Amino acid sequence: MGIALSATLAANEEIEHRRRAGEHVLHLAFGEAGLPVHPVLRERLADAAGHNGYGPVAGVPELREAAAGYWRRRGLPTDPESVVCGPGSKSLLYGLLPAIGGDVVLPVPSWVSYAAQAELAGARPLPVPSPPGEGGVPDPALLADAVLDARSRGRRVRALLVTLPDNPTGTLAGAATVRRIAELARELDLLIISDEIYRDLVHDPEAGFLSPADVAPERTIVTTGLSKSLALGGWRIGVARLPSEELRDRLLAVASEIWSSPAAPVQRAAAYAYTEPPELTERIERSRRLHGAVARAVHGLLAGAGVPAGAPRGGFYLYPDFTGLPFGTSADLAAHLLGAHGVGVLPGHAFGDDPRALRVRMATSLLYGETTERRLAALAAPDPLELPWISASLDRLAGVLSRLGAGAGTPGGR
Amino acid sequence: MGIALSATLAANEEIEHRRRAGEHVLHLAFGEAGLPVHPVLRERLADAAGHNGYGPVAGVPELREAAAGYWRRRGLPTDPESVVCGPGSKSLLYGLLPAIGGDVVLPVPSWVSYAAQAELAGARPLPVPSPPGEGGVPDPALLADAVLDARSRGRRVRALLVTLPDNPTGTLAGAATVRRIAELARELDLLIISDEIYRDLVHDPEAGFLSPADVAPERTIVTTGLSKSLALGGWRIGVARLPSEELRDRLLAVASEIWSSPAAPVQRAAAYAYTEPPELTERIERSRRLHGAVARAVHGLLAGAGVPAGAPRGGFYLYPDFTGLPFGTSADLAAHLLGAHGVGVLPGHAFGDDPRALRVRMATSLLYGETTERRLAALAAPDPLELPWISASLDRLAGVLSRLGAGAGTPGGR
Repeated sequence: MGIALSATLAANEEIEHRRRAGEHVLHLAFGEAGLPVHPVLRERLADAAGHNGYGPVAGVPELREAAAGYWRRRGLPTDPESVVCGPGSKSLLYGLLPAIGGDVVLPVPSWVSYAAQAELAGARPLPVPSPPGEGGVPDPALLADAVLDARSRGRRVRALLVTLPDNPTGTLAGAATVRRIAELARELDLLIISDEIYRDLVHDPEAGFLSPADVAPERTIVTTGLSKSLALGGWRIGVARLPSEELRDRLLAVASEIWSSPAAPVQRAAAYAYTEPPELTERIERSRRLHGAVARAVHGLLAGAGVPAGAPRGGFYLYPDFTGLPFGTSADLAAHLLGAHGVGVLPGHAFGDDPRALRVRMATSLLYGETTERRLAALAAPDPLELPWISASLDRLAGVLSRLGAGAGTPGGR
Repeated sequence: MGIALSATLAANEEIEHRRRAGEHVLHLAFGEAGLPVHPVLRERLADAAGHNGYGPVAGVPELREAAAGYWRRRGLPTDPESVVCGPGSKSLLYGLLPAIGGDVVLPVPSWVSYAAQAELAGARPLPVPSPPGEGGVPDPALLADAVLDARSRGRRVRALLVTLPDNPTGTLAGAATVRRIAELARELDLLIISDEIYRDLVHDPEAGFLSPADVAPERTIVTTGLSKSLALGGWRIGVARLPSEELRDRLLAVASEIWSSPAAPVQRAAAYAYTEPPELTERIERSRRLHGAVARAVHGLLAGAGVPAGAPRGGFYLYPDFTGLPFGTSADLAAHLLGAHGVGVLPGHAFGDDPRALRVRMATSLLYGETTERRLAALAAPDPLELPWISASLDRLAGVLSRLGAGAGTPGGR
């Protein structure tokens, strides 16, 4: 088993090190929402500070009921008994692997932790490239062959994983693709793990969103959490919607031996959040607009510099392709961006992509400002791109992209 | 891999079910401290509610520094860099298994989750009985043979686990035994995982406490948390003290893929707790006195009924031996105690003990009262045994023990 600090952590440690040394790094390497806690959630947490009992492993009834309501409002009939809470959707995604057993199909590229979790859980990942322009899902044209081939070699492939919308690409698989994948999952008898942590951050609320749980509810597990939509990453709260009592019980058995439950006061605050009161839906609406505006602006800069990247549809990521620059690997490119230009990104290799493909992930959410005041101003601004600290960062990035292109033939300092 | 809801959870669900049905169950089955949150910790959590960043996987620097101070005050020089925090010491104990690799020696009996965690992590437990009167440690007279025998059969035994003081027996291994185990660990090249979550609840503070980390610091991992001493089980906060940078990094790599870190606001409150301010040391002192008084009272009732049990030394457990009663297994006995007498306990079998041995674990901490007011009164009382609700529970238990003995030849209702 390969146990090593993840590429994300290593890259972020390097960036923090440079920042502490006084270097002004443009930090685009970390998937944090970059926004403050809404005051009503701070109050709810404070009010719940007296809750210290262990409570049910699945989570307190009020949180499970609220999460069920959240899914019901999105067209998915949900019994609170089918909901399991965890300290972050990451822990739930991990726990599902031993609960399901067998190997799991992962799209390429996909979030750094999926493959690492699979290795830790003894479930070998079966990588299948995403279709063009639709990150986060295995290409339906390749899926069946990959699974049947792996099975013919004795592997027990039990599940496939999708990310809707996607990290690292910031794109969103369309309804037709999701439908096709759900059909294939039925034909191949695969469970579907649908990581929908960015769902409420789809930039255009009119664009539509199809979950595999809408199409194949009998075999789809949905996970989500409040880390992205309400910027509560550090509070560690996620929820899963399980398609069967048997799988729920297996997940609970794993959970009870690894983490017990999320922090009890956090569960109470999260229960309030999942009732979706107006002040929080407004906060999410503003966050979504901000994420979309800044991601589109960076996408525009990339396009202006001739660097292709999928158009951002949700969340706060871009996955540009720097093919043509004289670097051997995405790691070399990321090291150059940090070392020569002070721009922190993650190499595509960290997401399971071909190491020689010059793709990197840019997280645009750390551009909103370093203080609570600036972040609140970014949330409130009719046009956040006009805020001086955001426009300065965008200008700096434009300059780097321009120099990167110009000096591509003779990259210095490598 | 056996994935099933643990015996603890199943037993507690049964008890809750009976309680909801209106039955008055004397609940001695759950290892919860049964006391309220200290007001200063509620305040600290509320003050930290704005912390929402992911933060370092090892925990925020102020918590690691405070935990290092906690160990330093107990004679263990500790660098904050050697401290890793997790959402409960349970998660840290789980993470250590893949971080260490190989199989682990477990004392018999021992806490329900150790063996379940080992199976989940693919590390086979190697059970070694505890020496008489000293639960929580493998018998030094049996340890070397067991390890060498397992190794001769190709098993890779890498660590042994101790619980000081012990759950389920409530006893504490003496200094000579701890020293001998540390020596054997050196001779056998084993790491020692020392679960010291009940350390601050040793009833007699003059009695002395020796950690394997005092004797073999180069190979001892210490885990603890605030779930028992400050009754913060539902807050999910634990800390580990690692003997090497390499092992710390491997634990961090596991942690980063499963749980990331404990909830950020909880970390801040825990940082305050680990500075051990006077109001919290006084709370722990009162808790320790209460736990000791009630555990000794129940031990006295057992002795009066002729039921042997190790004298309680720390925490809030007793592990009586009902040999002589006409039951086939400890599970039968526990079912009878609940079904015929309304007393909830856990069968020794759940702790890895011989199923036919008629031993059960009694947790005495749920006798302090069902309301915050009663629990605070129990903490404040010069003699908690005189409080009417505690004395009533003890009288009821005495009656059950008496009837159990009298009717031993012809147990009804089974």
